[in-house]
Amino acid sequence: MTNQTKFDVLGIGNAIVDVIAPVDDVFLGQNDITKASMTLIDEERAQGLYGVFPSAAETSGGSAANTIAGIAGLGAHTAYCGKVADDELGKTFAHDLRATGAAFETAPLVGGPGTARCLIAVTPDAQRSMSTYLGASSLFCVDDLDEDMIRDAAITYMEGYLFDRDAAKQAFVHAAEIATAAGRKTALTLSDLFCVDRHRQSFLHLIRGHIDILFANEAELLALYETVDFDKALARVREDCAFAAVTRSEKGSVLLSKEEMININAAPVEKVVDTTGAGDLYAAGVLYGLSRNLPLAECGRIGSVAAAEVISHYGARAQTNLRILSGLGVSS
Amino acid sequence: MTNQTKFDVLGIGNAIVDVIAPVDDVFLGQNDITKASMTLIDEERAQGLYGVFPSAAETSGGSAANTIAGIAGLGAHTAYCGKVADDELGKTFAHDLRATGAAFETAPLVGGPGTARCLIAVTPDAQRSMSTYLGASSLFCVDDLDEDMIRDAAITYMEGYLFDRDAAKQAFVHAAEIATAAGRKTALTLSDLFCVDRHRQSFLHLIRGHIDILFANEAELLALYETVDFDKALARVREDCAFAAVTRSEKGSVLLSKEEMININAAPVEKVVDTTGAGDLYAAGVLYGLSRNLPLAECGRIGSVAAAEVISHYGARAQTNLRILSGLGVSS
Repeated sequence: MTNQTKFDVLGIGNAIVDVIAPVDDVFLGQNDITKASMTLIDEERAQGLYGVFPSAAETSGGSAANTIAGIAGLGAHTAYCGKVADDELGKTFAHDLRATGAAFETAPLVGGPGTARCLIAVTPDAQRSMSTYLGASSLFCVDDLDEDMIRDAAITYMEGYLFDRDAAKQAFVHAAEIATAAGRKTALTLSDLFCVDRHRQSFLHLIRGHIDILFANEAELLALYETVDFDKALARVREDCAFAAVTRSEKGSVLLSKEEMININAAPVEKVVDTTGAGDLYAAGVLYGLSRNLPLAECGRIGSVAAAEVISHYGARAQTNLRILSGLGVSS
Repeated sequence: MTNQTKFDVLGIGNAIVDVIAPVDDVFLGQNDITKASMTLIDEERAQGLYGVFPSAAETSGGSAANTIAGIAGLGAHTAYCGKVADDELGKTFAHDLRATGAAFETAPLVGGPGTARCLIAVTPDAQRSMSTYLGASSLFCVDDLDEDMIRDAAITYMEGYLFDRDAAKQAFVHAAEIATAAGRKTALTLSDLFCVDRHRQSFLHLIRGHIDILFANEAELLALYETVDFDKALARVREDCAFAAVTRSEKGSVLLSKEEMININAAPVEKVVDTTGAGDLYAAGVLYGLSRNLPLAECGRIGSVAAAEVISHYGARAQTNLRILSGLGVSS
């Protein structure tokens, strides 16, 4: 780090409002929803699907935004870049994110598509199946980057989902370049198995050139390196990246630096209700720890506690005080 | 009953979208929110309060609408009358209610105030403190009553909250008259301690003249009869009403008809998270039972099970299948 930073973590991602409802597996089949994955849909499909959707709850979401909200809840200084529209959902998203303490200044889109919505169908096994209409969020481009914010953030964290649109992908690479030039750290999450499959070469290029901290789940990591051998994939990512955190659902996670490799247990959960946001909140805990230079094992522990909180209820944002839950005390 | 009815229960109430967030008691004090009660606020206060509100979730609410959603979830035929605006929140409310299976045809308000919002601050003791901006819902008037629907419903259920506006109060009395004239049953919930205090004489007049089925909690019943003696209040309500159901939080409830008086235990809850909707879902269970001519004890049991479900999570609508939870089987 070259000097004091204003923000611990800046997130860049798709600014999305979640529409979340309990369904059964029959509903997924009847409505052609791919289970436990994220599928991009257009506005017509979004309206049609909403029409058959059960009574739902609306909560602010977006993978990187969930992570930023979690980091803010842990007591660090955060900021976010992402595109909403100048509509009611956009105002809700902005309110909810700012209410966590995060700085959020990206200009809303006027006169274009509406704020992004993600229809999340949660089955009784707590798996979430997501159908995302990207709307305004997909028009995020280089001009929406706040370069000063990036230079002012110790870590710039980006979500792989953005790779599904070229203009956003370009903004992404540019953001990584600014951060790196300013002597800051960059972090990336692979986001989704199919997203990795769609953009494998771009991801590898970005990771090798610009990423210091990588988040992935086991399936995404295997897909990235096109192998079924987990140990081999771990060895590969260790070559490509200074730090990686790989989640394995109830099996916990693995944290890797050049010097260390640590297994972290998943935190106990009384009843898993909805796994939406599990990876996002895990990343929040780890990034919080890294921003405070905590030992790797402590970074992983806080990540596991935050993930356990968010899967115990519907919705991808924490509903309890993460600082107290993590044993970090009342004030930061 | 004079003949077969199309609907088992029709609800009339304030059509409201809930904005729900966890807070602490200090927040209530700092923002002048009366704990465990419902306070009416204007649009300016709604905007100011939302500005300081934590990250929230939006779910469809409204006391009678919650009850109707619950009855639909139990498998009965339901309908609803209430006023939303022609805006995004209004569309969300309509979607969520229709998704439960309820008929909802009230024309949305065009060019007036927006759809009603209730800012619900939930403290760690699971109490909800509500600040309600009535917006479009308060413009509900006689013209919004669907008289055919009322004649087609075995029971017309109305929420006391509507008594806070004269035009709505008038619509209310008119609805009761139509139902009674058609040989149908009428039901009323007192809704709120302070609401009872504001409108005691109007309530007593309506109950004595037109109401067959009364819902109240202990505090509301005591306020209605201006007594601190619960047994005395029970004796009074038995004179005034053919049937009454009185809830007593964790102490369960009392069901009274001219012939019977039954105590019902509260259903066990692992962890009480948010008491919003407890009374609404209790009423849903009891009304479902009454519409199926079930014994009083069974009506009370289903009410307790439905209330226990809704207080185990945030939000005032059930998140699990109430038929299965109540042991009523899969199909109605």
